[in-house]
Amino acid sequence: MEALTRPIVLLTDFGTRDQYVGQVKAVIAGIAPASPLIDLFHDVEPYAIDEGAWVLHTSLPLLPANAVVLAVVDPGVGSVRRPLVVSAGGRHFVGPDNGLLSAALQLPGEVRELSTPAWRRPLVSHTFHARDIFGPAAAHLAIGEDVRRAGPPVSDALGLPLFEATPRAMGELHGYVIHVDRYGSLITTVRSHQLFPRFTIEVGGRVVDERVHTFADAAAGRLFCHADSSGFIAIAMNQASAAAELGVRRGDAVVVRSK
Amino acid sequence: MEALTRPIVLLTDFGTRDQYVGQVKAVIAGIAPASPLIDLFHDVEPYAIDEGAWVLHTSLPLLPANAVVLAVVDPGVGSVRRPLVVSAGGRHFVGPDNGLLSAALQLPGEVRELSTPAWRRPLVSHTFHARDIFGPAAAHLAIGEDVRRAGPPVSDALGLPLFEATPRAMGELHGYVIHVDRYGSLITTVRSHQLFPRFTIEVGGRVVDERVHTFADAAAGRLFCHADSSGFIAIAMNQASAAAELGVRRGDAVVVRSK
Amino acid sequence: MEALTRPIVLLTDFGTRDQYVGQVKAVIAGIAPASPLIDLFHDVEPYAIDEGAWVLHTSLPLLPANAVVLAVVDPGVGSVRRPLVVSAGGRHFVGPDNGLLSAALQLPGEVRELSTPAWRRPLVSHTFHARDIFGPAAAHLAIGEDVRRAGPPVSDALGLPLFEATPRAMGELHGYVIHVDRYGSLITTVRSHQLFPRFTIEVGGRVVDERVHTFADAAAGRLFCHADSSGFIAIAMNQASAAAELGVRRGDAVVVRSK
Repeated sequence: MEALTRPIVLLTDFGTRDQYVGQVKAVIAGIAPASPLIDLFHDVEPYAIDEGAWVLHTSLPLLPANAVVLAVVDPGVGSVRRPLVVSAGGRHFVGPDNGLLSAALQLPGEVRELSTPAWRRPLVSHTFHARDIFGPAAAHLAIGEDVRRAGPPVSDALGLPLFEATPRAMGELHGYVIHVDRYGSLITTVRSHQLFPRFTIEVGGRVVDERVHTFADAAAGRLFCHADSSGFIAIAMNQASAAAELGVRRGDAVVVRSK
Repeated sequence: MEALTRPIVLLTDFGTRDQYVGQVKAVIAGIAPASPLIDLFHDVEPYAIDEGAWVLHTSLPLLPANAVVLAVVDPGVGSVRRPLVVSAGGRHFVGPDNGLLSAALQLPGEVRELSTPAWRRPLVSHTFHARDIFGPAAAHLAIGEDVRRAGPPVSDALGLPLFEATPRAMGELHGYVIHVDRYGSLITTVRSHQLFPRFTIEVGGRVVDERVHTFADAAAGRLFCHADSSGFIAIAMNQASAAAELGVRRGDAVVVRSK
Repeated sequence: MEALTRPIVLLTDFGTRDQYVGQVKAVIAGIAPASPLIDLFHDVEPYAIDEGAWVLHTSLPLLPANAVVLAVVDPGVGSVRRPLVVSAGGRHFVGPDNGLLSAALQLPGEVRELSTPAWRRPLVSHTFHARDIFGPAAAHLAIGEDVRRAGPPVSDALGLPLFEATPRAMGELHGYVIHVDRYGSLITTVRSHQLFPRFTIEVGGRVVDERVHTFADAAAGRLFCHADSSGFIAIAMNQASAAAELGVRRGDAVVVRSK
């Protein structure tokens, strides 16, 4: 493995039941055959830019120091939104200019528009820029090509605000469910340091007021909250699905009150 | 990465919720530890040879020039159908002789029956030839072994016709839905160059007559068609599922008429 | 690929629709960038230690001789259960001390508690030890670090009994469905060598008494059993789902009788 070959980390809303991720990987392997490909996450809800941005935000501290991140949640594919590369902290982040790359944009670094034809497939489709623009660009960066070749600097890339609950009144925070995981845990936009010492959390018409450290601390069948492994408050049950119990879905509101 | 180590591209109907793909990869890694493994697609509908053949057809231009393709959709596993390797354009394609490899068979090249015991696991099961025959063969080819060792030439491998809509009457084409993707887009067997300048498409009891270039061009809630990124006509909606709207599934008929 | 870089084989109940597997891989890639990562299986039913142990058991003969296996099905994460590394037959197996590693524990070898801080992430969460303890340990082993650094020997690791049906009466065996696969086949804990020459299998209120070698030998629409590719009896249908036909799920009872 040559020093200049960077790993490529993939984050998309393409799912894993179509050929789209595989085709992007095939194109990358043709350009950067020795680059390890790491599937970070492909099941962002279709078009849910915020969920993709949250995955990037929570995964950022875990990524290899020389990673190239290929992030594509792109409802505006084929329209005027610009393709970008953000370079920060030794890493490159390739993706659309729609807020998905917000976590990277908050770091000191450089942003460029991906415009060089040399890094694109000869025929660019209207609907699959991950294959035709973003993937090849990530591969060219992974083999050590100079990011300054990508295109001109951009100073007005779209950054979304950090994920956290919004104070609405004294002792009241409003957030929402940003992700529901396989175990039925509801990850919220409430940061664990935002939680009041004594609190209630309203979600799905129910009230949660117990906080535990580990799932094993909780009695079976009880709803509780805990600080998840990235520092956000999650609503869960021990060996059962809080999502099924509450009928809650991604995007549903969460209200925290001091008591 | 040594020059002779080829990447292996996997295409199966094994899905991603069982251990089958992982076991095939484990076997390959024992023989060809330095070969990158690229998951092209594992969610071919169980036993749907045509869908697998279509994925291979549309992905062929994207594959690394030295790829070994391991393609297994194999309802006849354990019966008399032959295991094959097709060598064409610098690539090898390993899979059953049931039409799955049609795209490769249409290229100038050589076809061999995979019959050498040296490339099989010592005990070959009746039901898992991807693990016992096809996977090991792909691995041996990936590390640079001579394809002529695979077995004798074959001249009558089964090739399916190219995917395209069939003219049935003046100004009328009959095709079908070959794949439904995660976004609910219906990919059809109608090639984009086959579409009449003014047309109607009947599918799922509804009529589509609008063609757009990109999803963002379409009004929310409207059905439209577009040339997908591989040159086939797809029926879709902007940020909604055409499959759900129409109740259409893989295999359902599509009729195109000139108007 | 350097001789000391081992492949890492991943087995979890994390599923493939969350970011958990990807985050573990990102952490590993930061420590062992040249180690191939092989996804053996991530869809163990949440918390189902027995299903994970069965996947490890049936996959063991297929793994690369120098593999590091990272196995995490861990309902007790954050509690007192110990993190372990089992070293046997040239391979290392990293995971919780809850029976998941039983197949490895049955081999002659050494068991150690994973306790060295040097192989952990600086901040260990309460709920994601795959990311903070198990994954980093597997990566350190993959790059050739000495397993004796992991921690002190353990002599009382929890081993579950081998998977097989239990004799309950003369000519009667009791087992259960350990896994339902994508095709709707029901894999049971009955070993093929346990089956009586003439038998009935009761499952889901129906009786199966036909045994075939390959799916293609069976008439469409008939239930049959066969020895699966790992030597366990499976109940299946040719090109149809036995699970859907019978309404059977993982964990349901299977009774075999001699006739």
